[in-house]
Amino acid sequence: MEPPGVAHASDPHFADRVRESFDRQNAMHLIQATLPLVEHGRTEIHLPHWHGVEQQHGFVHGGVVGMIADSAAGYAAMTMVPPSASVLTVEYKMNLMAPADGEKLIARGEVVRSGRTLIVTRAEVFAVKDGKESLCALMQQTIMVMHGRTEK
Amino acid sequence: MEPPGVAHASDPHFADRVRESFDRQNAMHLIQATLPLVEHGRTEIHLPHWHGVEQQHGFVHGGVVGMIADSAAGYAAMTMVPPSASVLTVEYKMNLMAPADGEKLIARGEVVRSGRTLIVTRAEVFAVKDGKESLCALMQQTIMVMHGRTEK
Amino acid sequence: MEPPGVAHASDPHFADRVRESFDRQNAMHLIQATLPLVEHGRTEIHLPHWHGVEQQHGFVHGGVVGMIADSAAGYAAMTMVPPSASVLTVEYKMNLMAPADGEKLIARGEVVRSGRTLIVTRAEVFAVKDGKESLCALMQQTIMVMHGRTEK
Amino acid sequence: MEPPGVAHASDPHFADRVRESFDRQNAMHLIQATLPLVEHGRTEIHLPHWHGVEQQHGFVHGGVVGMIADSAAGYAAMTMVPPSASVLTVEYKMNLMAPADGEKLIARGEVVRSGRTLIVTRAEVFAVKDGKESLCALMQQTIMVMHGRTEK
Repeated sequence: MEPPGVAHASDPHFADRVRESFDRQNAMHLIQATLPLVEHGRTEIHLPHWHGVEQQHGFVHGGVVGMIADSAAGYAAMTMVPPSASVLTVEYKMNLMAPADGEKLIARGEVVRSGRTLIVTRAEVFAVKDGKESLCALMQQTIMVMHGRTEK
Repeated sequence: MEPPGVAHASDPHFADRVRESFDRQNAMHLIQATLPLVEHGRTEIHLPHWHGVEQQHGFVHGGVVGMIADSAAGYAAMTMVPPSASVLTVEYKMNLMAPADGEKLIARGEVVRSGRTLIVTRAEVFAVKDGKESLCALMQQTIMVMHGRTEK
Repeated sequence: MEPPGVAHASDPHFADRVRESFDRQNAMHLIQATLPLVEHGRTEIHLPHWHGVEQQHGFVHGGVVGMIADSAAGYAAMTMVPPSASVLTVEYKMNLMAPADGEKLIARGEVVRSGRTLIVTRAEVFAVKDGKESLCALMQQTIMVMHGRTEK
Repeated sequence: MEPPGVAHASDPHFADRVRESFDRQNAMHLIQATLPLVEHGRTEIHLPHWHGVEQQHGFVHGGVVGMIADSAAGYAAMTMVPPSASVLTVEYKMNLMAPADGEKLIARGEVVRSGRTLIVTRAEVFAVKDGKESLCALMQQTIMVMHGRTEK
């Protein structure tokens, strides 16, 4: 547990920084993930269901579900830090609650508590089938703020 | 916590079942992972470092590290169950302890406790750089055994 | 991940069962915890701040925070199962986000997804200081349903 | 994930500091836990099975198992930091794998990776019954080092 958080200076360009970082992640391109929503303290990553991300039953692979949950929550944290800082995932825990069965997935990440050094986040992943969302995964995550280290 | 485990009948063909399942996972092919070791209660997944699995700093993406850790430990669990059963990841927790920096990664999964319905596993992921291994991630996982449901 | 859940038969006496189980837990009495709220899918456990539950800085011990979070969420799960079943904690993950500083703590547990065999829950723990609540811990948990095994 | 760790200066009196901190924890006294082993990077906490720490089935309460696992691993981390620093639990994840059934419990904590700001640890809890140990819980934990803040 960390001592009471020091508010981070607000950065009007946080969404640009987050989108540029996302664009530099080859692994997000590899799985065809996109980042359609970046707000202060929360983001959404979308993933189409295509053959390359499937496991042996034809659902989206649990590891891929983890990738988008981890990234959505990590980028939610990044919206809270000053431009002179970057963020790193310390750890996360994820429950896979139902098969990721649908035409696309939506991972919604949000900040729960923002401290100076550590940010706690969570993410929910929904499978969208015939336009209807169902919750398939739940994640809780710890992010570290690296002050004075931009992503460049 | 589960009541004392009932030993699973030993299956002489467990390695074949595990390899066949791995081969059906498109997502493992997508990231170019391989499964060179399958023993009773443990497996290894290897991943070459190539551009498609990188994050923004040129290291292997933490989500990809999670994918191979999850799979290595899940397949370690699968070696313990009878041919008439399959396994599902209930949840996992992973610490990313150092950048996944090297020419390849090795995820080593092993079973800690095998019960009739639940199997607890752990995995360590090592980055291999100039032939030297360093531990970069640690995972603890819960697997559910689905009796009477083969992967087909 | 578990296959789609089968709805549990509703039990009109769930709150009585939960309260009776809580009363049989010596460890809850030892720390002076109480269970003032039991609803379908959620509960609250309260803990006064007294010297016996303190750590070295005079805040409530993180392990005690974990005890009430684990129990609040586990009992939220128990409200969902039939009288012929009992529940067990498979695992939980908890972030301690701020010192548990106040005159009492409130742990709020709730069910996120209820399957036939596994129930996923979460809990938040608040410190109440001068009547004002602040979030100090966040937990995510997996519960197993033991069908045909009452607590007696 | 944190950048490569900076080795902490070795403190010849680490065991004294750890024992003094343990002695200041009322909650450890409340449950009758003791700290018979403190080595560099690992500790052991012992807990007698007595009525006050039981759950409804007469086993040791899972929350109490969590308390000793959390503390054993946290104190293992504390052995690695300089006298001018203190440690805080950021988060932990614990699997309860078997009933804590026996005349006493032993929690063994150890450091997996020690960085400048974060230390990753794990703990195993064994139930000792008729002199025979069996593994009943497994924990993975993240500890934060507070430089320049002694426990006083």
